[in-house]
Amino acid sequence: MHLNIAVLEGDGIGPEVVAQSIKCLRSVEETFGHSFTFQKGLIGASAIKQTGSPLPKETLKLCKSTDATLFGALGLPEFDNNPKAKVWPEQGLLKLRKKLGLFANIRPVKVFPSLVKQSPLSKAQVKDTDLVIFRELSGGIYYGEKTFDEEKNIATDICSYSESEISRITHLAFKSARSRKKKVTLVDKANVLETSRLWRRVVTQISESYPDVELNYQLIDNAAVQMVLNPAQFDVILTDNMFGDILSDQGSVIAGSIGLLPSASVGLEHAMFEPIHGSYPDAAGKNIANPVASILSMAMLLQHFKMNEESDAVVAAVLKSFSKKIVTPDILGSSKYGTNYVGDFIADNIM
Amino acid sequence: MHLNIAVLEGDGIGPEVVAQSIKCLRSVEETFGHSFTFQKGLIGASAIKQTGSPLPKETLKLCKSTDATLFGALGLPEFDNNPKAKVWPEQGLLKLRKKLGLFANIRPVKVFPSLVKQSPLSKAQVKDTDLVIFRELSGGIYYGEKTFDEEKNIATDICSYSESEISRITHLAFKSARSRKKKVTLVDKANVLETSRLWRRVVTQISESYPDVELNYQLIDNAAVQMVLNPAQFDVILTDNMFGDILSDQGSVIAGSIGLLPSASVGLEHAMFEPIHGSYPDAAGKNIANPVASILSMAMLLQHFKMNEESDAVVAAVLKSFSKKIVTPDILGSSKYGTNYVGDFIADNIM
Ligand SMILES: CC(C)[C@H](C(=O)O)[C@@H](O)C(=O)O
Ligand SMILES: CC(C)[C@H](C(=O)O)[C@@H](O)C(=O)O
Repeated sequence: MHLNIAVLEGDGIGPEVVAQSIKCLRSVEETFGHSFTFQKGLIGASAIKQTGSPLPKETLKLCKSTDATLFGALGLPEFDNNPKAKVWPEQGLLKLRKKLGLFANIRPVKVFPSLVKQSPLSKAQVKDTDLVIFRELSGGIYYGEKTFDEEKNIATDICSYSESEISRITHLAFKSARSRKKKVTLVDKANVLETSRLWRRVVTQISESYPDVELNYQLIDNAAVQMVLNPAQFDVILTDNMFGDILSDQGSVIAGSIGLLPSASVGLEHAMFEPIHGSYPDAAGKNIANPVASILSMAMLLQHFKMNEESDAVVAAVLKSFSKKIVTPDILGSSKYGTNYVGDFIADNIM
Repeated sequence: MHLNIAVLEGDGIGPEVVAQSIKCLRSVEETFGHSFTFQKGLIGASAIKQTGSPLPKETLKLCKSTDATLFGALGLPEFDNNPKAKVWPEQGLLKLRKKLGLFANIRPVKVFPSLVKQSPLSKAQVKDTDLVIFRELSGGIYYGEKTFDEEKNIATDICSYSESEISRITHLAFKSARSRKKKVTLVDKANVLETSRLWRRVVTQISESYPDVELNYQLIDNAAVQMVLNPAQFDVILTDNMFGDILSDQGSVIAGSIGLLPSASVGLEHAMFEPIHGSYPDAAGKNIANPVASILSMAMLLQHFKMNEESDAVVAAVLKSFSKKIVTPDILGSSKYGTNYVGDFIADNIM
């Protein structure tokens, strides 16, 4: 198979971790006889520095014309805590998600048996965790109109959801549940928000077409507690953009390191694969960043194109790195293996 | 001192836990020579059933005319999952907070040494946790206009904050930090929300009047991770209504049980004291609910009226119940002590 892949390295540790994924894709090419081409584009802080824009037109064009996008991470401290800034790196990612129509961000949270001890939670709590979060990615308060009234000093964000925005991701979530443990948990704040009440109505109605899948509801405040106390209760979590952002980062605690969790952002025409971690600027260039989240995101890319055997081979190589303890320091505090070494090991073991 | 206290028991376990607080207040009266009078009012599901309204006029009048309000819990399953309902219990609490001008909800999260083992987190992680969350309580997306467009099937919630809404709670938070570890962490989503950017501007500016207090910033997705990984890093957390709701419930995991955490909701003229737990209808009437969150909320009431010695005596009695293991089953799974017995023990030990 031939794939043309847009590569957006972004900022901080982005370039280093993406480099490991590309290394692994080269290994997949060789082992399975595929051919991948890579084209780089600018995004985030580095794009602002070079072009003034966090998402240059060429980058958007590139992502639209390629088969899929591999994304690293974005953000730099000099742009944070500057609330008067007119442009900032995150705008690039938000705009890209919207322009590519990526309405569903799929975030699996699994506890790898050989890493159970890494979790700050007890083994009994986390050991059977295998859940996937379907986070709505192109609506809600992230994209509603934002205003600031300078005279009155009042800022406003609007959170809006339409039935169709809710229904398209709901179908994806239920279809996924069908091939899993057949349970969907809708997370919202229906006792306060009008949008949450629309989510409940739409999801409840759609659930009737999936009689084999159980639907239940959790309020976000309770879900944040359950995610720590008893994550194994979940199968598919369906939620909006903001709640999904919070819950899925929290899920990383279960897995033992935020450096492990991948995600796929999908739409009708495009797909992008991105680790859930940030750009971790303090670690940039130090060869200590964990490349696993990026590599597992790349495995989700392969799966997206039905290269299941290839995707499984990548995951198997990652698992081997865990069991051989070829891991970066975030996993075993004392580990001396660097980003590159771990990337090489995983690439060499794709077979 | 004489205090006239409004008592809103609410639903589920509300009446049982509040009864223990009143028992303890009787004990405080006796030991310290005060006089308290209690007047009950309806709220929540029981108010809807008896009057059609989740906050009858008489209840609001009562809370306005008394010195303080002791609140139990509210909500019943028959009102949940009915997204078409026109009234529901939670509206009573939201309206009451607004009408009483309770703009700051203060939620301390402490790990009690004798209960460290209760936390699902490791001892090393939680042992030095002693933080307090200042959650803005009468603004934000909770109170912005809510609309539903039936034709287009679009629901909308508006999140708005004015400078003055932010500044009044910010001053409270910084004053509190002054008497504590001198650190304020502002939690927001400034890389996405306009309201968060206003929070950063206003809080940063106000922080200049408190040069002895350190201010730092965390994004909500990261804060949700840090709350589990390393809660001891926090002193005072300052945040908006929605993020405060999520973070503080999450904080309950650290303490070992949501049945332990109290809160005070304060404004310029009124104050209300409420456990952070919900109405837990499955436990209602079974004499198993943990009364400690309600009793500690009552201790915050005493402190609010500068009865520090009295408040300390209540807390000491609670700590004694922990060390003697006179606790409800949520604390020690095998405990056979009921709500009433624990309440009696604590009341008897206020000295
Ligand atoms: C960088 C930021 C805008 C982004 C988000 O909130 O969506 C990130 O936290 C994520 O979860 O992908
Ligand atoms: C009952 C509900 C409306 C309330 C809230 O979200 O404020 C509760 O969760 C709380 O935290 O006091």
